[in-house]
Amino acid sequence: MTTLTPQTDASTTDDPTGFTALESEVRSYSRAWPVVFDRAVGATVFAEDGTEYLDFFAGAGSLNYGHNNPRLKKILVDYLTSDRMVHSLDMLTTARREFLQTFRSHILEPRGLDHKVVFPGPGGANSVEAALKLARKVTGRESVINFTNAFHGMTLGALSVTGNSMKRGGAGIPLVHATPMPYDDYFNGDVDDFQYFQRMLEDAGSGLNEPAAVIVETVQGEGGINAARAEWLRGLADLCKVHGILLILDDIQMGCGRTGGFFSFEEAGIVPDIICLSKSISGYGMPMAITLVRPELDVWEPGEHNGTFRGFAPAFATASEAIRTYWADDTLEKDVKAKGLLVESHFNSVVSRYPDHELLAKGRGLARGLQLPDGELAGRVTQYAFEHGLLVETSGPDGEVVKLLPPLTITEDELRRGLAILDEAFDTVLG
Amino acid sequence: MTTLTPQTDASTTDDPTGFTALESEVRSYSRAWPVVFDRAVGATVFAEDGTEYLDFFAGAGSLNYGHNNPRLKKILVDYLTSDRMVHSLDMLTTARREFLQTFRSHILEPRGLDHKVVFPGPGGANSVEAALKLARKVTGRESVINFTNAFHGMTLGALSVTGNSMKRGGAGIPLVHATPMPYDDYFNGDVDDFQYFQRMLEDAGSGLNEPAAVIVETVQGEGGINAARAEWLRGLADLCKVHGILLILDDIQMGCGRTGGFFSFEEAGIVPDIICLSKSISGYGMPMAITLVRPELDVWEPGEHNGTFRGFAPAFATASEAIRTYWADDTLEKDVKAKGLLVESHFNSVVSRYPDHELLAKGRGLARGLQLPDGELAGRVTQYAFEHGLLVETSGPDGEVVKLLPPLTITEDELRRGLAILDEAFDTVLG
Amino acid sequence: MTTLTPQTDASTTDDPTGFTALESEVRSYSRAWPVVFDRAVGATVFAEDGTEYLDFFAGAGSLNYGHNNPRLKKILVDYLTSDRMVHSLDMLTTARREFLQTFRSHILEPRGLDHKVVFPGPGGANSVEAALKLARKVTGRESVINFTNAFHGMTLGALSVTGNSMKRGGAGIPLVHATPMPYDDYFNGDVDDFQYFQRMLEDAGSGLNEPAAVIVETVQGEGGINAARAEWLRGLADLCKVHGILLILDDIQMGCGRTGGFFSFEEAGIVPDIICLSKSISGYGMPMAITLVRPELDVWEPGEHNGTFRGFAPAFATASEAIRTYWADDTLEKDVKAKGLLVESHFNSVVSRYPDHELLAKGRGLARGLQLPDGELAGRVTQYAFEHGLLVETSGPDGEVVKLLPPLTITEDELRRGLAILDEAFDTVLG
Amino acid sequence: MTTLTPQTDASTTDDPTGFTALESEVRSYSRAWPVVFDRAVGATVFAEDGTEYLDFFAGAGSLNYGHNNPRLKKILVDYLTSDRMVHSLDMLTTARREFLQTFRSHILEPRGLDHKVVFPGPGGANSVEAALKLARKVTGRESVINFTNAFHGMTLGALSVTGNSMKRGGAGIPLVHATPMPYDDYFNGDVDDFQYFQRMLEDAGSGLNEPAAVIVETVQGEGGINAARAEWLRGLADLCKVHGILLILDDIQMGCGRTGGFFSFEEAGIVPDIICLSKSISGYGMPMAITLVRPELDVWEPGEHNGTFRGFAPAFATASEAIRTYWADDTLEKDVKAKGLLVESHFNSVVSRYPDHELLAKGRGLARGLQLPDGELAGRVTQYAFEHGLLVETSGPDGEVVKLLPPLTITEDELRRGLAILDEAFDTVLG
Repeated sequence: MTTLTPQTDASTTDDPTGFTALESEVRSYSRAWPVVFDRAVGATVFAEDGTEYLDFFAGAGSLNYGHNNPRLKKILVDYLTSDRMVHSLDMLTTARREFLQTFRSHILEPRGLDHKVVFPGPGGANSVEAALKLARKVTGRESVINFTNAFHGMTLGALSVTGNSMKRGGAGIPLVHATPMPYDDYFNGDVDDFQYFQRMLEDAGSGLNEPAAVIVETVQGEGGINAARAEWLRGLADLCKVHGILLILDDIQMGCGRTGGFFSFEEAGIVPDIICLSKSISGYGMPMAITLVRPELDVWEPGEHNGTFRGFAPAFATASEAIRTYWADDTLEKDVKAKGLLVESHFNSVVSRYPDHELLAKGRGLARGLQLPDGELAGRVTQYAFEHGLLVETSGPDGEVVKLLPPLTITEDELRRGLAILDEAFDTVLG
Repeated sequence: MTTLTPQTDASTTDDPTGFTALESEVRSYSRAWPVVFDRAVGATVFAEDGTEYLDFFAGAGSLNYGHNNPRLKKILVDYLTSDRMVHSLDMLTTARREFLQTFRSHILEPRGLDHKVVFPGPGGANSVEAALKLARKVTGRESVINFTNAFHGMTLGALSVTGNSMKRGGAGIPLVHATPMPYDDYFNGDVDDFQYFQRMLEDAGSGLNEPAAVIVETVQGEGGINAARAEWLRGLADLCKVHGILLILDDIQMGCGRTGGFFSFEEAGIVPDIICLSKSISGYGMPMAITLVRPELDVWEPGEHNGTFRGFAPAFATASEAIRTYWADDTLEKDVKAKGLLVESHFNSVVSRYPDHELLAKGRGLARGLQLPDGELAGRVTQYAFEHGLLVETSGPDGEVVKLLPPLTITEDELRRGLAILDEAFDTVLG
Repeated sequence: MTTLTPQTDASTTDDPTGFTALESEVRSYSRAWPVVFDRAVGATVFAEDGTEYLDFFAGAGSLNYGHNNPRLKKILVDYLTSDRMVHSLDMLTTARREFLQTFRSHILEPRGLDHKVVFPGPGGANSVEAALKLARKVTGRESVINFTNAFHGMTLGALSVTGNSMKRGGAGIPLVHATPMPYDDYFNGDVDDFQYFQRMLEDAGSGLNEPAAVIVETVQGEGGINAARAEWLRGLADLCKVHGILLILDDIQMGCGRTGGFFSFEEAGIVPDIICLSKSISGYGMPMAITLVRPELDVWEPGEHNGTFRGFAPAFATASEAIRTYWADDTLEKDVKAKGLLVESHFNSVVSRYPDHELLAKGRGLARGLQLPDGELAGRVTQYAFEHGLLVETSGPDGEVVKLLPPLTITEDELRRGLAILDEAFDTVLG
Repeated sequence: MTTLTPQTDASTTDDPTGFTALESEVRSYSRAWPVVFDRAVGATVFAEDGTEYLDFFAGAGSLNYGHNNPRLKKILVDYLTSDRMVHSLDMLTTARREFLQTFRSHILEPRGLDHKVVFPGPGGANSVEAALKLARKVTGRESVINFTNAFHGMTLGALSVTGNSMKRGGAGIPLVHATPMPYDDYFNGDVDDFQYFQRMLEDAGSGLNEPAAVIVETVQGEGGINAARAEWLRGLADLCKVHGILLILDDIQMGCGRTGGFFSFEEAGIVPDIICLSKSISGYGMPMAITLVRPELDVWEPGEHNGTFRGFAPAFATASEAIRTYWADDTLEKDVKAKGLLVESHFNSVVSRYPDHELLAKGRGLARGLQLPDGELAGRVTQYAFEHGLLVETSGPDGEVVKLLPPLTITEDELRRGLAILDEAFDTVLG
């Protein structure tokens, strides 16, 4: 979700980009960045007129390994030129087997996980829909707990556990079967963790429908880069265990190394019952999603959930190569954490430069945010950045957080260059 | 949906393909076709041991122009090797503009349509979810009419308008806000078209919630290759107009030339308010979907519906090339109809060979089905076909229809070869 | 429901009756009959100025034994003056035991029924809500089938199975978990009974949620005095049995002798699983309702359904006396049928007098209707009747049916007198 | 709701009371008090064998003026013997006018209220259903906020805002469109009032559906005699005003003087938008309910909500007399408060006698509770009381609160006598 301050819409005048007459008004990013992009390499995007932009957005977290990563590109082009299967539904393919085995050997086994893989469809929302279905089937309950400012997707099931009121309003029907609970630090430390949730669960008269599952993000990206503490996540996992509630971890934006480890929940030491992955799982920005389920929960009937694009095999090929390349050791993980600290220190210095503005530096790994007093100010920051060659978006309920999701493979030099533009932007807007 | 008779599951013995231990039990096609596929060209798929299979399935309608179509492949590989944008959300890109302009000039304008394009996400279900949302927003009503044996997708909104009870059961919550009406010929001609629907609409005491929209397929693929008559579709469009109900046409499986014309509704001469396309729209089996909306219905707020993979640009590149290649004139359309008649005549001869079996030849264009008395017999036919080198699936509520969706670009020779295998299969099973 | 043509609302001028300023705009009968009533005996109601009205309305079927029936009045006054329990929830009382035993000996046993009695609360809607709850609990399914133009009550559960769109709209939330099916003769004989319903049940791909129960009236009072044929009711009962669906018979308005027998379904020879009674069950117009359930369905937890006024004991006292008085033999039953035929023959003569008006005589027993071309004409008939001393209302989706529900105990002379007024009214309006 | 420890069910042996074979298993009070009651006067109930019981239960708050109150009885018997209208739907009657005028002059006007009266049906649940419908219609929103441990009734709409999980489970369908919020002191003072609710309302990303209304009790009777503080109620009213949410006050059990003033919210000085009254409104334990709505909210269509027993006129007659008798001055109000303090001081002495048992004295006016550590102990107290001639029930999620609702007109002597039995009971159980 971008909440950048929109440009004057070209459509009302002369439609210079040629899109307005053809494409629906629902488009959003194109309003904030009204140029036509053409090529992209690593952390750099090129407009068709040749203008370069440094990319601190990375496909909303879908390009953790950068645009057109050369190693993955080679695999992909080889795959395609060899006429290997492109579209395969859930037929057995060599590419699917390679992915499953690589994911098992490089990701699951080293982390002591024995989850089975569901291919739920091409996008994150498919993964969430499959997770919710399975949790309801396993438990025989209908209700799900989500958290304030959660974002899980735009299909009806995923939308019902999403917080944003504008997006919810788009459903056109009441969104039910979900109850929001306060995310970590929702009350600025005034209230004990899970005080409300736990009390409601333990009180047979609370009126809370017994939940099938909790669905949670470790860091809420769209919600404003709200990073839950490890102890909060552990507390949540414990609460779920005590009450027989399944824990669904939506790692769509924060997985694949965004916070350091492959899974964002590793630091907390928890084992979710169901895990949703998408965005960067293919490594190349291609549509792919998986849902991981503990073996004892794998109670599906054959075909009880399916989808046409659940077997887009070129994505399996690049996914396998990305895992082999980046997750055979902990080099990337350490690198992400180091770069994250670099961003954090820059943000801290901005915060201390403007003590009167109640700024707040947020995030973990390379999911970072700087919260401003309101969305208007944050929008001016990202607008300045765009005008100076940096793509960065805002998030949060009011668009009040400048949100950084650079490629994990960005060079330190690029990172510093982008931060310097942001520093100027903050000084210009806040100074 | 495949409903082929499953093989003995390797998982219970020795898992020779190596998938069972890793992938969820939800997999289905792989149970009917327990070989590992590797490469594919045109209408032929190759297992890793080199065995060839003729493909009368075509990715459930996603590969209308065949596997790894060389013309599209060239465009795709060029696109990728030039480092052009792969992942773009709804940012403006040269590839998106090219697609929008090509789609307008080659598809919409020649057919007198002025619909605007929504990019709803990567798959057909996203297109359906967007259509339902928009119809509810425009009308302020919540209820939708779907048809018996409809299939629209597996996300919660799309599933609620889908007929299959096993798939519906997977939702784990009551599927509401939709009322099924009888599809064309549901009563074998005994009842006037729309007798029930019309009466319910006109009776203020009927208890039918006033519908926002009707969602319909012109030919129900998953439902058993049920082809609605043109006059039924026109009657439906008229009924919608009279009652202020939006007409959503789900052309995901039957569009892109499957029945002859680019849109399957062209023959009926109707103009749907909202059109869903996916499957073969990219031309290359890549995840892509669009939703077409009449301009006056384009009332979205920016970002009110969105999705991470709604801007997978390589798919736009192949989609543009596919349109230029196959839809600049009516060659393909004529070709599809001619091949369709060839299949029809083969099926008719099977029907007349076995007058006691109540066989029924069904379909339109290259969406063809032969209905058997039950799913067990149909499964034996497709099983025989697989063992003799032909991939073909079943559909229908009981899997009783042998369903043919060959690539539209299949050669006449290939088509005859496949039909000959099927003829043997029918003779073996029914003889 | 009355749909009489409203008088000019006094509230807009001078509020002569003194109600407008105090009572909500939701009031309805008082708009059609803008006089203040005070006393009532048998089939006669007296306004405070002494004007007499003959009552062909009988509290919408709540006064089958007439206003202030002397035999019941004696029992009631004795009960009250003896300081016997008035309010008892579900405590054991002598009055409750007397009712249960009398109901068993005089009603259930002679008809071969062994249903157990639930006291669900004071009104018909409570009985329906209890029936729906129990059917869902027993079957574990959520969906219910109702019929076109059904009326079952105004609480949320009861309203969801009611047809009238204005009343449904009052819910303010989508009414779901119910699917309407065509009532008997909905298509004027053009369609086989249950053609649609049966086909939907038998087709696993129909999209119809598997129903817990069917809820049906034998004669739809509010729906326009639509009387189902006995063979249709038997067919429905058979269909329910075959598909494991519970049959809920709402006998709230048509029970207690309205159609002749104590239960209106006796003629059809069916045994419903659950039976709802209210309105005339107390015999004196006092709030009382019961729900009868087959013993094997009595799976409630203690207190799982309850209600403050489920033990209004004076109503039990009059109910027992009414049963002893009117249901010890078949005198009343024969009498009702004879009077019903008298009404029928009058209505038939009206129909034949006005062959161009497409009039239709409807009903069974003393539930009778004459259907006019539209609600405006019917309203003029009832308005004329009121002005000439007869209370009679309209029903049907458009208020197009003049609906007669006189007390069963009305004298033949009174009945003829009222019919004469109606004859004049028809002649005046149609002539 | 009673949660008394059940007696061994006679049904399993010989059914001495004769009810088991006839009445559903859903009965509850009769399990705790397995005697057959016959007569009742004031605060005394007589079993059929003549045994006397002092009544601290009063029809769950429906008998505030005692059983068979002689003044009301005279009015009622006169009404009935004069053949005045008994059943009147919403026809204008002299009895209805008298009630409306008396209610206006004695109750509304002295309190500065100008609400209009809806007659929603015979019971409290009807009043709640009407309130919810109207709030949704007025606001165009679907969601309602209820509170932990709320009880509002057993019909589907009322049940959806009720807390008790056993009762909710009886619905058989998911109860949605309502979100529970913590009632006053839910966290024992650890959390600021409305911290959670207010934060959710103000955060556009909270995921809380925008509420049409809040429904609240000032003292939760079934919930365990939880009395909200006046400042909490004022805070709630303010919050509703700020956010445009309607405030529905369910005064069904706590109104009609139970806490002192006629309305239980008077002390807090708030003016609810919609008020639900039932139980003691007729004054005689007869089924009657009203819903009061601010005039500007009275947007109903005629007949948009209705019900067969909304005009049970004898109840209007006793209601009018009860108001004239008890609410012409503040004698009763003062008396209730004094008696309440008497109970409170007794309960406080019990609490201090057993400091190790974490007892808690709760309530306001003559709605009083003594909370024990668990329901088993509380059940033993009420069981002891019953065996010693005192009817008193428990409430609370675990039945852990001994709940006193004596008639308001109980004599001080009777009150002391009952409290003495309770003292013995506490000493026996806790000592």
